[in-house]
Amino acid sequence: MARVVVYGVGAIGGVVAAALSTSGSDVAGIARGAQLQAIRDGGLRLLSPDTDTTAHFACVGAPSEIDWREDDLILLCMKSQDTLGALEQLRAAGVENQHIFCLQNGVTNERFALRRFPNVHGATVMLPGTFLKPGEVVSHSSPRYGMLDIGQFPRSHNAADETLAKAMEAANIAVFVQEDVMASKYGKLLMNLGNITQAALGSGVGQGELPALLRAEGEAVLDAAGIAWSDVGKDDPRRKKFMQIKDVDGVPRAGGSTAQSLLRGAASLETEYLNGEIVLLGRLHGVPTPVNAAMLRVATRLVREAAKPGQTTLADLMAEITPAS
Amino acid sequence: MARVVVYGVGAIGGVVAAALSTSGSDVAGIARGAQLQAIRDGGLRLLSPDTDTTAHFACVGAPSEIDWREDDLILLCMKSQDTLGALEQLRAAGVENQHIFCLQNGVTNERFALRRFPNVHGATVMLPGTFLKPGEVVSHSSPRYGMLDIGQFPRSHNAADETLAKAMEAANIAVFVQEDVMASKYGKLLMNLGNITQAALGSGVGQGELPALLRAEGEAVLDAAGIAWSDVGKDDPRRKKFMQIKDVDGVPRAGGSTAQSLLRGAASLETEYLNGEIVLLGRLHGVPTPVNAAMLRVATRLVREAAKPGQTTLADLMAEITPAS
Repeated sequence: MARVVVYGVGAIGGVVAAALSTSGSDVAGIARGAQLQAIRDGGLRLLSPDTDTTAHFACVGAPSEIDWREDDLILLCMKSQDTLGALEQLRAAGVENQHIFCLQNGVTNERFALRRFPNVHGATVMLPGTFLKPGEVVSHSSPRYGMLDIGQFPRSHNAADETLAKAMEAANIAVFVQEDVMASKYGKLLMNLGNITQAALGSGVGQGELPALLRAEGEAVLDAAGIAWSDVGKDDPRRKKFMQIKDVDGVPRAGGSTAQSLLRGAASLETEYLNGEIVLLGRLHGVPTPVNAAMLRVATRLVREAAKPGQTTLADLMAEITPAS
Repeated sequence: MARVVVYGVGAIGGVVAAALSTSGSDVAGIARGAQLQAIRDGGLRLLSPDTDTTAHFACVGAPSEIDWREDDLILLCMKSQDTLGALEQLRAAGVENQHIFCLQNGVTNERFALRRFPNVHGATVMLPGTFLKPGEVVSHSSPRYGMLDIGQFPRSHNAADETLAKAMEAANIAVFVQEDVMASKYGKLLMNLGNITQAALGSGVGQGELPALLRAEGEAVLDAAGIAWSDVGKDDPRRKKFMQIKDVDGVPRAGGSTAQSLLRGAASLETEYLNGEIVLLGRLHGVPTPVNAAMLRVATRLVREAAKPGQTTLADLMAEITPAS
């Protein structure tokens, strides 16, 4: 059985690494700081609506500390803005032909990786994970921890997808191998355009017409660019079967990944690779995207001001929108 | 007259900044370390086959130290691997709608910039510049310091191109405003595929069939990707008129930009955005690129081993090529 190296043991990487490890997969993690220390000291606890387990697996601080094997499967689980640095470290550590899976939001990571490595796969992550504290992650999904669409980049699929799918299925994560995984990832991208507004306004606060405006721009841009996308949103029947969102005793919901970044005081947000992707495609194809461009400016300001979720009002956000993008 | 901010005052940025400044343009430089200190202390000396002048212009260490104006023209003159960091600093410093020109090899910088900024231009740099030492740069070109094709990204041109062209022409740099500047930059990319082999073997050392092999892969890939390119190589008649390569008294030729990086002991090379672009496009479009992929591996090794130009033999390079990319 191939080893799975989880690079970035945060919310998503943490749930995946713990689930794989407790189901018997050979797992190695690459983590930082307090998270690395906690996993080494006491393992990684994974909570869900149905389970509470602690996984014990090897964890290191950098790719250079891993004795790489030719059949390692590498899962990139960092934010998009950290991908280039991670790829550089992988190459410097001697990684070459191993299969690399981008379990990341946005659609640029696969392209970044393919410049450096020949075997790149995309993965659409549908997994409501939260990093609770060093050594503890939660998924609010039941009965599975979450779902993944996976496949080769730019298209097709091969034996590595099947190998990972088998390991994930054994680990209570539903996996669907796709011929065109990027269509699924572009569909997810449209859903992620609201991450920044939720992060700014706080969880559960009304967003008015903003989500519809952001998504309409996104759909218009993908249409103009001739990019296919598939709906992986709340009407996706797989969600009802595998991924019902439920409370976990004693665990508050923390909001989306951008809100979690803001809460932690991150120096950068993923917005540039979410709303920014729509803005870029709009500029390349002549489609105005004033609402997504405004949310990019909001993201820059939130980081600069070290704002927390809920400190911005809907009126603030609407005032940022200008007719010209 | 709009101010020109030259971000990255190395070989190319240095020649451009000094030429613009001595011809009366308002110039601000952004430089680092010893170069910044030297320019502040004594200006920047520009040597060429025909001239020897010293330019005095404002120079700072970071975009945050500049009092930005709405009509500033910003020239990106760093290597491609440093562009993302530079763009982040520009945005954090409040840059928004200013026109940004990528005076850089490779074809990804424009796309990086357009994600963040609405007004992006490409520039093909044909300018044999060398960074001699802090405070001194040279261009070996006569009668002009060099030539630029410029235009908006992804295509067209506007008043900002005309403004920059006028300033450059006054500064003894020939400028050609283009409708499709990227075609010119893809043509330059094909020429830059030999930068790594020259850096490895040393200036003036025979490269056997390597240049032809690298270029044939490049042309095949651009063809498969449907990307137009124009020949800006030695048969371009503008070279004979504006850009004859001549000796400069007492100044040895230092080789191409990758060789210069290697000489300086740089931690990264631009190869990933030159040969790596061909490898990426080959993987996206199903065209094998074993020779360019081999030179990417060579670049990684040269950096790791801190090799100097001329320490590698042609046999070493040929041995790196494997049938499968």
